[in-house]
Amino acid sequence: MKKISVIAFVLLMIVSPLPLFADDGMWTFDNPPRKQWKERYNFEPSDAWLEHVRLASVRVEGSSGAFVSANGLMMTNQHVASGQLQKLSTSERNLRRDGFYASTSAEELKCPDMEAHVLVSYEDVTARVQGAAKEGASDKENNEARNAQRAAIEKESTDKTGLRSEVVALYRGGEYWLYRFKKYTDIRLVFAPEEQIAFFGGDYDNFTYPRYCLDVTFLRVYENGQPLKTQNYLKWSAQGPTDGEFVLAIGNPGSTNRLLTLAQVQFQRDLGNPLQMQVWNSRREALLRYSATGPEPARRALNTVRSLSNSIKRLVGQQDGLNNQRMMLRKEQDEKALRAAVSSRPEFQQAYGSAWEEIANANRELPTYAKRSAFSTIAYSRLGQIASTLVRYSEEVGKPNEARYEEFRDSKLESLKFNLFSPAPIYADMEEAILASWLADAQQALGADDAFVRAALQGSTPAALAKSTVAGTKLGDVAARKALFEGGAEAIKKSDDPLIMLARRVEPIIRDLRAWNEEKIQSVETAAGQKIAAARFAVLGRNVYPDATSSLRISYGRVLGYEEDTTLVPYKTTYSGLYDRAVSFDEKPPFDLPQRWRDGKAKLDLSTPMNFAYTADTIGGNSGSPVINRNAEVVGLNFDSNIQKLPNRYWYVDEAEGGRALAVHSAAIIEALRRLYGAEKLAAEITGR
Amino acid sequence: MKKISVIAFVLLMIVSPLPLFADDGMWTFDNPPRKQWKERYNFEPSDAWLEHVRLASVRVEGSSGAFVSANGLMMTNQHVASGQLQKLSTSERNLRRDGFYASTSAEELKCPDMEAHVLVSYEDVTARVQGAAKEGASDKENNEARNAQRAAIEKESTDKTGLRSEVVALYRGGEYWLYRFKKYTDIRLVFAPEEQIAFFGGDYDNFTYPRYCLDVTFLRVYENGQPLKTQNYLKWSAQGPTDGEFVLAIGNPGSTNRLLTLAQVQFQRDLGNPLQMQVWNSRREALLRYSATGPEPARRALNTVRSLSNSIKRLVGQQDGLNNQRMMLRKEQDEKALRAAVSSRPEFQQAYGSAWEEIANANRELPTYAKRSAFSTIAYSRLGQIASTLVRYSEEVGKPNEARYEEFRDSKLESLKFNLFSPAPIYADMEEAILASWLADAQQALGADDAFVRAALQGSTPAALAKSTVAGTKLGDVAARKALFEGGAEAIKKSDDPLIMLARRVEPIIRDLRAWNEEKIQSVETAAGQKIAAARFAVLGRNVYPDATSSLRISYGRVLGYEEDTTLVPYKTTYSGLYDRAVSFDEKPPFDLPQRWRDGKAKLDLSTPMNFAYTADTIGGNSGSPVINRNAEVVGLNFDSNIQKLPNRYWYVDEAEGGRALAVHSAAIIEALRRLYGAEKLAAEITGR
Repeated sequence: MKKISVIAFVLLMIVSPLPLFADDGMWTFDNPPRKQWKERYNFEPSDAWLEHVRLASVRVEGSSGAFVSANGLMMTNQHVASGQLQKLSTSERNLRRDGFYASTSAEELKCPDMEAHVLVSYEDVTARVQGAAKEGASDKENNEARNAQRAAIEKESTDKTGLRSEVVALYRGGEYWLYRFKKYTDIRLVFAPEEQIAFFGGDYDNFTYPRYCLDVTFLRVYENGQPLKTQNYLKWSAQGPTDGEFVLAIGNPGSTNRLLTLAQVQFQRDLGNPLQMQVWNSRREALLRYSATGPEPARRALNTVRSLSNSIKRLVGQQDGLNNQRMMLRKEQDEKALRAAVSSRPEFQQAYGSAWEEIANANRELPTYAKRSAFSTIAYSRLGQIASTLVRYSEEVGKPNEARYEEFRDSKLESLKFNLFSPAPIYADMEEAILASWLADAQQALGADDAFVRAALQGSTPAALAKSTVAGTKLGDVAARKALFEGGAEAIKKSDDPLIMLARRVEPIIRDLRAWNEEKIQSVETAAGQKIAAARFAVLGRNVYPDATSSLRISYGRVLGYEEDTTLVPYKTTYSGLYDRAVSFDEKPPFDLPQRWRDGKAKLDLSTPMNFAYTADTIGGNSGSPVINRNAEVVGLNFDSNIQKLPNRYWYVDEAEGGRALAVHSAAIIEALRRLYGAEKLAAEITGR
Repeated sequence: MKKISVIAFVLLMIVSPLPLFADDGMWTFDNPPRKQWKERYNFEPSDAWLEHVRLASVRVEGSSGAFVSANGLMMTNQHVASGQLQKLSTSERNLRRDGFYASTSAEELKCPDMEAHVLVSYEDVTARVQGAAKEGASDKENNEARNAQRAAIEKESTDKTGLRSEVVALYRGGEYWLYRFKKYTDIRLVFAPEEQIAFFGGDYDNFTYPRYCLDVTFLRVYENGQPLKTQNYLKWSAQGPTDGEFVLAIGNPGSTNRLLTLAQVQFQRDLGNPLQMQVWNSRREALLRYSATGPEPARRALNTVRSLSNSIKRLVGQQDGLNNQRMMLRKEQDEKALRAAVSSRPEFQQAYGSAWEEIANANRELPTYAKRSAFSTIAYSRLGQIASTLVRYSEEVGKPNEARYEEFRDSKLESLKFNLFSPAPIYADMEEAILASWLADAQQALGADDAFVRAALQGSTPAALAKSTVAGTKLGDVAARKALFEGGAEAIKKSDDPLIMLARRVEPIIRDLRAWNEEKIQSVETAAGQKIAAARFAVLGRNVYPDATSSLRISYGRVLGYEEDTTLVPYKTTYSGLYDRAVSFDEKPPFDLPQRWRDGKAKLDLSTPMNFAYTADTIGGNSGSPVINRNAEVVGLNFDSNIQKLPNRYWYVDEAEGGRALAVHSAAIIEALRRLYGAEKLAAEITGR
């Protein structure tokens, strides 16, 4: 879409398909960019090649990973696995801080609630889902009809195949696909490095390049109590990529907003993002206050603090992009060009022309709704989330499958229970701190007379209410959750668990807000989005890619440095640079090294490449993506982007603008395993020698 | 001046002197910032301390250096000495590329035309110079009177003391000082590293930090054929500075424009700088075309290409500052505040109030003049410069001393001859290439009908004229220059040397332009500048510093990292980082290492600090400045600034804005001398052990 002038658009209508000018795109496996691959990189993968890398790819913890041995060994980032590392840790055994290595399978530690999904098949169900909408029905009715159809398709598929089945909406409703996943729930920790080397430089170096992080973890997927045997694993490239080499990344990018209209993007800039920032800051500050009460609280809160800091820094970068007039102007011109192409043909104008205004009109209602919606929740405390889920489930489960909220459909219940009944530790003091701070912030943001605030507090103070509900609840006990879950609506209604009572009180308000949003915003956006998608297909052909939706994608690009501040930034970094950066700060945190790394410097070949930068189109959710060469060998492990790339939620930040994805170099992983961690056996399993 | 609001100004008039808010200032030794030193760093140097560091400081090659042993050993940058290295090199012996070390004094190489100046005394002659101006005389007449007075003072001093004597104008004419220098002309090369390590990263890493350059050269000053014996040398700090440490830099910053009015700065932004850029680009492109003809031409042109690239990159950074609306607004507000303070008191307004408009009016005439002035010269070729100097000298020397152009006064003649009669090699093919390109560019810039172009070419083409004049000239021969110099006006007039004839033809045009500039611009700016300086003293007291004028200054600040792109940049770098950067680029030029460094990696302690960043106020000309701690020990050798600092020609770029001076760390120098260069003897002389 980018860089296409009005004139080019007019030309395109004659000479389509659209020639792209950059390595952009998070492509679905049903529509890989074969043309670009061939023309630019002389790359023509077979269907078997594509199937192989798809089946070797894993969705895990909302992010990505890949099989790297025939024995179910899975690679992802330390920061993707860090929630599990946290849950496996105690005040005595800190796996996040100190790392872990199981040299035998008996020593491997089972993750309390990790799931891995492999996309085994997909089929186009667009006609069936879109066909559920009826001429003359309201947007809301059609939305419900489509959702019901999606639920029915998922249920049919699950019943027939036993596989986890999801109907994913692509192109903002332009297409619907049924994805079927093989699901694994017995996943065991094999290796994690010290967090200080996985996340060297901390929040400062997050979204920074040059970079020096060994952000890797190895887990093993088990099936029926045995390591998974699979041929769908990626081989290892010991030497990694050369400068300029063509590479691909496979993973599950979470969310992009490139197909949004200008009005929607402006809303995000002016209202959505500032509100999101307020919420994240509120949550982080609460956790930092709690962390400051002692080392054990700090340890408990660290994972969420780190995740929020990451989100906040990312959002700042995104806002910088939206505030960049040049970039925003391009977005404006793109939309203008598409609308001009639509209005230039009466049949297009008739079918799609109204969509942009429909969205702009709907968005005008958002300001009053958005803040209430953002603050009306108790789910930022883990116990609050459990209580809300139980209350909501008890109401939803009584409805026909297709009439339920999406997350309570039959196809999702297994994963829901897996999460709900997780034995992962819950810390009452942290829960109380989070809930008290959150309610206080909600009270301040919404005012004491707000419906949610009144229902939640009932005249009490946030601190007092948080104290009494957390002290009185039994939801910390998995058995208590199971009893309420199985007891259904009746058990929930009768429960005098104070947290369930709190969740019951606020539930009608949350439901009202959700209904309002679904009717006034989502229904309109989906209906209009479908029109815009159709307009885009009509004008540009099918050589376009959908927004990211946490579904499996393949991206591509080159390993490449860039120019910054009038100098060059290299395509890779080395272990020498790690030691330079640590010593240059006199090892002041967060630039300190783990003792193993300080002591082991002489054992390492310091010329070993550590991280590299590449141009592929990725975003959050691609963490843990394997970076592979044209032979489908692992040359790296994606773990981050540089700061220049952050506006790529809204548009691809191209080569010249310096946007880069960042990966751990394959050679760095093997060098560290062999020389510093005594993990020769693991290195041999990975490299095959 | 910066950051002072109008209200603060009004307050200041009651509570002056001005409190400064940053470590800014290139202070003269007669007015060091004792107050700031004491308040901020508890530093109270004695007069003897100040005299010691002044007498240890050297002006050399328009830049800086310092004595670092009792035997006349002088330290400066490799890039400051590189012109001499170039002149000492031949196609067989490339000292720039390969470096040099003389382990005995017999091996030391005498530089062909290097001078070193030490400021041995200074006195205030403001009253005498300013007193030369008469009420009622024109600006031009007063300017001539002041200049004559300056010449007379210089001559008196030289006659009396035998020392090189200069009357320097400070505060844009607010003060005049007589500076007396001890001059040395027998300077011998002791040590230079390979240029590839002195200038690692080339033009890309110029003005960049983090940085990895060993930009150092050692020379020895001789007197009467013997190494100079001196007690005025700086001792060495082997460990260098700590993070945050207070340091000082002493040197000869070339030029700043901070006291210019807003109109003058805007002129530079809109006309002066773009024109300068055009001239430098024209010159660099000519040399690059010449360089492309072979390795020997490339070697011959390298020094000037490097110098021009440096100037161009610096100018880009300066323009970025001028185009920064926030910074420019501050300049505007500062001027507004000063003018408000002046106009608030009738006697100030009467004495100084008109100055700003006088300058603005004069500047309005500049556009037509500026381009002609920039292109009407033949002095960018060395032979052209010699010819112009001889022609101009022959005319000037017949005038009374005080009526001559400044550079031809008696006090300057010795240095003039030293340069004119230098035995340094001149390459005819390069001379011809430079002259041809320059005349072609002048023709294009000014048009074929321009007076200079017509006088220079006389209907010939630039290429033909350059060919014939360079082929026919005898000025490559030092004896021929001497004959013409000694022959005076008559010899010049009669000369049929084609280059002298060319210089004679263009001389009247160059003189006219210079006269116009002196009358219409300089005289007005000096008269008005004197008023503004007086206004500034009246409003702010004497706690202000003058613009840089290539005269000796002392700056101070802290060794300090900074924040950039949301991460931290460390206060120092290490040898590890050098190897990281080289390997990260696969050692592609300009990130390749000299063979000695590639082979010698294992001999080095890679944790040795290499460069560091500090906040002192410096600018071009400070290259080679010693960076010292409060004990007057060398902790580093200034060699550059980062890109953030470049707008500091116009205003100090403070700590928070990330502006930093860059220095070679004292430990890096000793480590390299000892471990890689086998220069144990030199290291021992420097460190005293």
